[in-house]
This record gives sequence, structure tokens and C-alpha cells, in this order.
Amino acid sequence: MTDKYDLALIGLAVMGENLARNIAGRGHRIAVYNRTADRTRAFLAGPAAGLPIGAAYTLADLAAMLARPRKIFLMVKAGQPVDDMLAALRPHLEPGDIVMDGGNSHYPDTRRRHAALAAEGIRYLGVGVSGGEEGALTGPSIMPGGDPDAYAAVAPVLTSIAARAAGRPCCAYVGPDGAGHYVKMVHNGIEYGDMQLIAEAYATMKDLLGMSAAEMQPVFAAWNAGRLQSYLIEITAAILGHADPLTGRPLVDLILDKAGQKGTGKWTSQDALDLGVPVPTITEAVFARCLSAYKDERVAAAGLLAGPRDTWQGDRAAFLAALEAALYAAKICSYAQGFALLRAAAQNYAWDLKYGEIALLWRGGCIIRAAFLEDIAAAYGRNPALANLLTDPFFTAALENSHAGLREVVAACQTRGIPVPAFSASLAYYDGYRRAVLPANLIQAQRDYFGAHTYERTDREGTFHTDWMKK
Amino acid sequence: MTDKYDLALIGLAVMGENLARNIAGRGHRIAVYNRTADRTRAFLAGPAAGLPIGAAYTLADLAAMLARPRKIFLMVKAGQPVDDMLAALRPHLEPGDIVMDGGNSHYPDTRRRHAALAAEGIRYLGVGVSGGEEGALTGPSIMPGGDPDAYAAVAPVLTSIAARAAGRPCCAYVGPDGAGHYVKMVHNGIEYGDMQLIAEAYATMKDLLGMSAAEMQPVFAAWNAGRLQSYLIEITAAILGHADPLTGRPLVDLILDKAGQKGTGKWTSQDALDLGVPVPTITEAVFARCLSAYKDERVAAAGLLAGPRDTWQGDRAAFLAALEAALYAAKICSYAQGFALLRAAAQNYAWDLKYGEIALLWRGGCIIRAAFLEDIAAAYGRNPALANLLTDPFFTAALENSHAGLREVVAACQTRGIPVPAFSASLAYYDGYRRAVLPANLIQAQRDYFGAHTYERTDREGTFHTDWMKK
Repeated sequence: MTDKYDLALIGLAVMGENLARNIAGRGHRIAVYNRTADRTRAFLAGPAAGLPIGAAYTLADLAAMLARPRKIFLMVKAGQPVDDMLAALRPHLEPGDIVMDGGNSHYPDTRRRHAALAAEGIRYLGVGVSGGEEGALTGPSIMPGGDPDAYAAVAPVLTSIAARAAGRPCCAYVGPDGAGHYVKMVHNGIEYGDMQLIAEAYATMKDLLGMSAAEMQPVFAAWNAGRLQSYLIEITAAILGHADPLTGRPLVDLILDKAGQKGTGKWTSQDALDLGVPVPTITEAVFARCLSAYKDERVAAAGLLAGPRDTWQGDRAAFLAALEAALYAAKICSYAQGFALLRAAAQNYAWDLKYGEIALLWRGGCIIRAAFLEDIAAAYGRNPALANLLTDPFFTAALENSHAGLREVVAACQTRGIPVPAFSASLAYYDGYRRAVLPANLIQAQRDYFGAHTYERTDREGTFHTDWMKK
Repeated sequence: MTDKYDLALIGLAVMGENLARNIAGRGHRIAVYNRTADRTRAFLAGPAAGLPIGAAYTLADLAAMLARPRKIFLMVKAGQPVDDMLAALRPHLEPGDIVMDGGNSHYPDTRRRHAALAAEGIRYLGVGVSGGEEGALTGPSIMPGGDPDAYAAVAPVLTSIAARAAGRPCCAYVGPDGAGHYVKMVHNGIEYGDMQLIAEAYATMKDLLGMSAAEMQPVFAAWNAGRLQSYLIEITAAILGHADPLTGRPLVDLILDKAGQKGTGKWTSQDALDLGVPVPTITEAVFARCLSAYKDERVAAAGLLAGPRDTWQGDRAAFLAALEAALYAAKICSYAQGFALLRAAAQNYAWDLKYGEIALLWRGGCIIRAAFLEDIAAAYGRNPALANLLTDPFFTAALENSHAGLREVVAACQTRGIPVPAFSASLAYYDGYRRAVLPANLIQAQRDYFGAHTYERTDREGTFHTDWMKK
């Protein structure tokens, strides 16, 4: 039969619907399935009307509609629903079939599923997809991990639906088993960092400089024309210029300051802790969202806890230039942490990650897309084994020109009681990374004192223990 | 038979040996067992000589030697060895017997083991033990969790071997299943924070003020006579005064600045991330140890990355007073984070934790023992439902008098290139917690913009979504 469908997509929530429309729009014959049939019918009659999309109402029918080897894109909620759907799907699959998980699955789950299905001859790809609803429809960033031959079989579809940047699709094979979802997780961790750093720049303008949303909007718009150019800076300017239709006031001023989170930022920090890689900027971003949720406690504490009373006096334009430098320097530190984590994961899991290609995958389609990522790709082009982005000549020079701004902003805010946890964590990371001698010698002495944990010396080889209590 | 032993201890590494000696020294009849018999024989002939300690060379013999219900203290390495020993021990146990795990087990493991053994009628206690080798011998802090009736059966032994502070044993029932190991984990997280904060104070003296170990020693000794009095400050002074017998130089100056870690600090941060509780000071302490391990990268980066060139000028005595205040303020913030985490865990696991009693458990024997813990106990005495330590009147007043010092130190170090990640994270936590309005409104706007995650408003009820791209 020649009228089989090229691939299937399971799960018609908004991301699934938009990906299906994107795939169909690129000329691929796609069949869709959803656990509840009503949703499928509504999709076909609504957003999918006019597109060459088939529908199945049982998994058996779906499997029968597909050309072999079958290619099935799962777009169901991460966690147990993925396992449930895989179990339901399994009887309808044959060796050689390919299942792609396009959700935000935690990479250890992807590794487990990959191994379990591989034992039965089913090829499993963990596919990181970033770009939100709009990206899913018009071109997301796609980070596929799993077996290279399975990726080769689906590459024509995935590259055709991906975003494009500088003429290349933002989709390329990342690495084995969970590597794709790992890279997506770190993308999201970096996204948390970017968003918090921007929020701290906003808080600095609002609370230190006393600027209104209308005054801030052109500043972010101007920044978006320079080295900070990025999707998140662009939408920040748009948000600051958006009036609330109900009140006419800037909408951002009316939004409650309790941030939600879905877990991928948290996973990045937790994995970094497991691998022993410092990612303080990303972690402070996660904690800042946690603290924001304690709104009632904060309101109560605001009336109780003392702060400094002096206000900022100075040249606003000059300070805003320092703030731009601060944001740039902190952003470099945050990305350096994220890429250092990727490097540790590559070593830990024996993944041959191509850091420059990963930077280019994020160049379009995804939330952290930015011109800046080309500088990162160039750094890894110069030295694929670069230990840390901070030591690439481009970034070393960039930091030489921007660290003073970061110091100025952090000092100005911290002496005046404005919390800038991610800015200050970035600065501490920079100063810690460039410090040949840290005070960990004292910590080792303490550990040896109370726990006989031993220590090394700077002047001779070996491991030593001292009976500190002996005079 | 009346000559049965009161209890058994399995695992004769240093902690196990010292606990056995402590137990025997308090008049309890204890039988010991070790996986390798040579170790048992060496213990009996050496450290245990003259003490009323019995030995078994098979688990069957050990079980036969014990009065019923049997009470068995496991002092084996956390992780798989505990499961292995429980499996080996299981055939020799009867319903009603009590097994205590005195190692640094991860609390989810303790919960799992507790449930599995409870199903077979075996009573399992997860017993946090802190104090290092010396504490194990002379009186540790003991944090037992599990079934209250099982605790009641072993309480006479545990309270007799525990440290005492203000006339009370530093041992009391903490809560069900994994609560004891959870409290021990948070103790260790706080210990990481304390050690890093002290290390940053030391780095500030050394690198900002240019002080020698000999100059620092009396400063820490003086601090130990004041509100900072604690075991860790005390041993820091002792360490700074300790000369290397090989070179005659201060030994601390010769210790390599790469700090080790065993995982309990990391677990604290990871669990806080799961529970959504900000613990930035503790987490920066863990990351600082991670960064210290990247010694080769740091040495290379030190020659590449730019820093500020100005040096500190000022009144050293006045600055040291600010540094003492900084350490005190940051310590309060760190403990506030740890107790907020305990509170969230109590809610999450339905443990009725008594925060004031926990503070008193830590008053003696353990690594973080300090006069300060009585102030914490008093705060929970005033208000057992206190949301956060920072808002207790004693600590609010303490911070009113010390936050300026923390600001001064952080600004002085950060503008001069000295990393103080835990100091600055503590300050950001303080300023964030007392801020009624954080910039998370912008983050919610961004999330709604790219992901339709919705937001709440400050001026009306409900959940809102805006089509931000529509003009």
C-alpha cells in the first residue's frame, strides 16, 4: 500500500496540535491520535481543517495506518503518562519502529525507556523541543537524542519543521539515549537564569532608579539592538510597553509577583549538584521563583525587617550603561555554568556532545535564542575542548569590559537593600573561577580536625592527617 | 538466661568502634560484629580492652546473644551496604526486634527500609548521629526517627551515651520514619553553610585585609567569646594557631584548597529544590566546594581573567567589627533557611517536628553546636508556628544591628574581586525575604508571553492570559 502515513503524533494538547500542523504544513502525511476522541475531532474540524492530517481513534488503527518502520511522535505530559502510553502502544509496535518523546521528560526516564525498548528492538528518541506554542507551530529548536540510525530515519521530518537560523535548521543529532532531553534540560536551566537576570535588571531600574515601565521600555528595546539581542530581551520590551485594556495602566505593574515553575530548572540544579558542577546563577534563579511564591510571608516580613535607608543618587544614563554591562557579564557567567555542566555530563555519560552545534541549535526557535549563541559556537569552533567559556579569548575580553559594571550594580543594589541574587551569584562565580587559591584549605583543615577526613598539601605529595588537638 | 546482651552494634569502622566504647562505658552490655573478623579481634584486643564488650563472628551468634526484643545498632556505610546488611540480618530477627541505622543514610532510603521492615513486624529507627569520631566516643548529638514505641525501648541507651547541654541529653525523638535522618541531613547542610561562611570571613581577612594566620587567630578566639561562640569558630582559632611540625609555618597555609564532600550538603540543596524552599546560603556552600575542586582550571583562569585593581584602605579594627556582624547576620540567614526547610518537610511528610527541640539537640555533641542554638530554641518557644526565624523578635533585632556589616563586607569584597558567594547569597536572601514586591511579575509576564502559562493580578481575582502579540 502506498497510502500509508509517514508518521503519527499522539497527544493533542496545544504543543501537540501545533507540531502536527507544522509537520502537515511541511508536506508530511501525518496521522494523529488523542486519548479522548472529542479532542481529536475538534482538532480536525478546527485548527487542522484543510490540512492533510489523518486521525485514528484506537492505537491499533493508528499503527495500521503507518508506513514501516513506524515513526511515532509522543506529545504527552512528562512523567507517568509517557510510561502509560508506551505500555499501551507497545503491543502495536514491531522491531525497528521508532518512538520519539517530544515532551519535557527528565533525562533519567529517557535513559530507562530507551534501554527497555532497545531490548525489544524498538528505537527510542528523546527529543527536546523548545519554542513554546508559537515555536511548535512555526519552527521550534529540536534536540534529538538516541540511536543515530533512528535519528537518520526521522531527520527529514524534524529538520523540515525546525526553526532556521543563518540558513541552517535548528535541529541536529545531539547524542545517545538521554542526551537530547539533557540538553533541553540545560537549555531550560539557562532560560531560568536569563529570565531572572532580566528581572533583576528590571528591579534595579524600578526600585533603585525609580523608573516607570514606560521609561524602561526603550532601554530594553535599545539593549535588544546590541550585544544583548535576544528573544527574552525583545519580549521584555514588548511586555513593558503593553497597556492593560481594563485599566490603561502598564499590564506588568498589575501582575502578581509569584512565579511558577515546571521543574526543568530545578532538575538542572539538582543534576549539577550530583555532578559537582557549580551552577549558582541558575540555582539562584530557581530559588528566586521559590521565594517569590512565599508572598504572604514576604509581605509580613517587609514590615518587620530592617533595611538601609539611603537612596541612589547619580547619573542615570551612566548607571544604565553599567547595568547593560552587568547583564551581559552575568549572562556570560550563566552560560559558562550551563556549558560546564554539559561538559561534565558528556564525561559522566560518555556522550560526545558538540558544544558549538548545541549553541547553534539554540540560535533559533527556542526561548533563549540570541545572537550571543554565535559567539559561543565560535568559541567552541576555536577550541572544541574548551574547559570553560570564560577562558575563551572572546569572552575573556568581553568580561574585561563588563565585570566592572557588574560590580557597580551589585554593590549599588546590595548596599541599598535591593536583592540581586543572580547578579551577585554570577559575580561570585566569576571571581571564584579566576581565583587560584580559594579558602577551601581552611575547610579541609576543619574537616580533618573534626572528622579525620585528611587533606593534601601544597608543598609535598600525599594525603595527610593531623591530630589537631595535640599541642 | 539473664546473661544476654542489652544490644548489638554492627560495623566496626572508627565511628562504630567509638560508639561501642561509649555504650559499654555507660554500663550497657553490648555485643559487636564486623563483616571481617580480624577487625573485631583487633578491636577487642585494642580499643575495647577492659570494657565489657562481647563479640560475635556470625550474625546467627549475634542474634542468639541478645535479650529480646533485640536491639541492633547498624554502623555500616550508607547506601547499598545498609541494604545488604539488612538482608543478611533479616533471617535472624523476629517481630518486635529493633534495628537502628546510625549512618548518614539518605532519608528516602530510611523511609523505604522502615516501610519494608514494618511490614514484617521489625521496628526500624533511622538515627542521625553527629559529632565525628570524638563525639561518637564522648557523646554525640543523636536524632532518632521512627516509631515512638521503638524509640522508647532504646531511649535509655541513646540518652545515656549522648552529649549533654544545659543538663539535658542531646537526644530526643524527632518524628516518624525518615525524620531523624532528615534532621541530620539538614544539620549537615547547615554545617556546610557555617564552614563556608567562616571560610569567607577567613578569605576576607587574608585577601582583603592582608592578615596572617597568626593575626587572624586571636580574632576568631575573641569571636568565640561572643555571640558567634561555636565549635566551628573554636576549632578555626585552633587551626589558625597550629604550626606545621615539618616547616614551622602555619599548617593552614600549606593545605591544598580543594574541599571534599560526602553528599549530605548536596542532598539538603536537592531536597530544598524539590520542596520549593530557597536555601541559597547552603547551596552556595556546596557549590563553593565543587568550584574548589576545579583547582587546575582556576589556576589557568587566574592568569586570563581580569579583576579590579584597587586595594582596601581603611580602619582594620572597624572593618573586623563589620566582619563579625556580617558572619553573624549571614549565619542567622543560613539557619533560617535550614529551619524553613524543616518546616516544609514536616508539612510534606506529615511529621510533627519540634523545631525548638531540634535546636537543643544540636546544642551539644555535634559539629554545629553553638550558644546561638538556644536563641533559636527560645524563638520557637515563643512561637512554635513561627514561619521563618528572621521574623522572631530576637532575630529581627539581631539583624537590625548586623545587616549593615554584612552589606559593608559584601560590597568591599565584591568591588575588589574577592568571591564571597555565601555572604552575598545570605544578604540577597535577607533582602528578598523582606521584600513585599519582587520582580517575579515580569517573569510571569514572560512565561505568559511565550508559553501561555497565565498569571494572577494584584487588582482582581482569577487567572489571566494575554495575547501579548496582539496590538
